[in-house]
Amino acid sequence: MKLLEDRIRKDGKIKEGNVLKVDSFLNHQMDVKLFHEIGLEFKRRFEGKEINKILTIEASGIGIACVVAEVFDVPVVFAKKTQTKNIAGEVYRTQVESFTHGRVYDIIVSKEFLGKDDKVLLIDDFLANGKALEGLSTLVQDSGAELVGAGVVIEKGFQVGGQIIRDRGIHLESLAIVESMDDKNGTIVFREQ
Amino acid sequence: MKLLEDRIRKDGKIKEGNVLKVDSFLNHQMDVKLFHEIGLEFKRRFEGKEINKILTIEASGIGIACVVAEVFDVPVVFAKKTQTKNIAGEVYRTQVESFTHGRVYDIIVSKEFLGKDDKVLLIDDFLANGKALEGLSTLVQDSGAELVGAGVVIEKGFQVGGQIIRDRGIHLESLAIVESMDDKNGTIVFREQ
Repeated sequence: MKLLEDRIRKDGKIKEGNVLKVDSFLNHQMDVKLFHEIGLEFKRRFEGKEINKILTIEASGIGIACVVAEVFDVPVVFAKKTQTKNIAGEVYRTQVESFTHGRVYDIIVSKEFLGKDDKVLLIDDFLANGKALEGLSTLVQDSGAELVGAGVVIEKGFQVGGQIIRDRGIHLESLAIVESMDDKNGTIVFREQ
Repeated sequence: MKLLEDRIRKDGKIKEGNVLKVDSFLNHQMDVKLFHEIGLEFKRRFEGKEINKILTIEASGIGIACVVAEVFDVPVVFAKKTQTKNIAGEVYRTQVESFTHGRVYDIIVSKEFLGKDDKVLLIDDFLANGKALEGLSTLVQDSGAELVGAGVVIEKGFQVGGQIIRDRGIHLESLAIVESMDDKNGTIVFREQ
C-alpha cells in the first residue's frame, strides 16, 4: 500500500535493534483518516470473503480495528490482556509471549462474543514474531468460529511471524512489509507486493 | 441520547454492587455503528467549539475515540498505562487510582503529541469516580494545551466523578447519566437531560 509506505518513510523513526517507531500516526497518536484508507485496502484485499466480525487485541490494535470495522460494517471484539483469573468457562483463554515486554500474559475473550456463527478477520497494527496473531487464531479455533484471515498494517518481513502465520494456512494480508531497515542512514526497504 | 439509553436498557446487565455491564456493545464487543452515532451526538453537543485533537486512555476508550475522531476530523492520542519508567522529559506523566483494579498506575503521553497548539476533547467510555478524566485533564494542563471539554458515553450519576469534573470548570457532556440501578428487578433510571 503505497500511501502507507510513503507515510512510514516520512514519519517513521528507525531505531537501533530493528525498532520502527510509528507512534506519530499508528499506535500512540492515531491518524484516523489513514486508518480509513487502511480499511478500504483491507476491504479490497478480502473482497468476496464473508466476514461478520473483527477480532483484535488491546491496546494499539483497537483503534485501527474499529475504523476498519466501519468499512466492513461489522462489530469488533478485542481480546483483553489479563493477569487475573476469571471464572472457568466464561472466557476463551490462551497465553501470549511478549518479546517487547519480556513476559508471558493471558489473553481472553468472553464466550458470549465469539462462537461458531462468526466469520472472523483478525486485525493488528504490527506483525513481528507472530505471537499475538497466533494467540488470536487459537481463540478463534477454540470458539468454533471460522478464521477468514488476518490483516496487519506493518509486517517486519525479516522476523519469523509472517512465515509462521502463512504456514498455518491463514490468509494473511500485510499492507507494508519491511524487508530491512538501517538506523544509521535512516533507509527502509519494503517487499514488493 | 435516547438511542444509547434504549441500548443500555436492552443489552446492559445490572450486577450487584452498582455494576453495569455493557460489554456486548461498548467495551469488549464494540458496535461501531453506535459509536458513529455517538460521534455525531458529541459533534452536536460541542458545536462551535474549536477542537483539533481527541485524547483518551487505553484500552476501552480507544475504539470510541477513533470513531468519534472521524466525525470531528481530528487525530486521536491515547494515554498509555504504564508501570515502567520512561526517560524523564520525554513524556507527560500523572498517576491514576483505579477502584476497579484496586491499584495506582501511571499514565503517560509523549510530549511530541500534546502541546500548546492543541485544543483537546477528552473522550472515555465511563465516568464513575472521575479519576481517569482527572488524570487526562492533568496531562492536558501540564502540556500547555487547551482543554475544550470532555465527552463521556455513560456517567454513573450516583458516583462523585461527574461533580468533580464539573467543579473543575470542565465542559462535560455525558450521553447517558445513570441515576440509579436495581439489580434485583433489572431497572435503570436515567437523569433527564
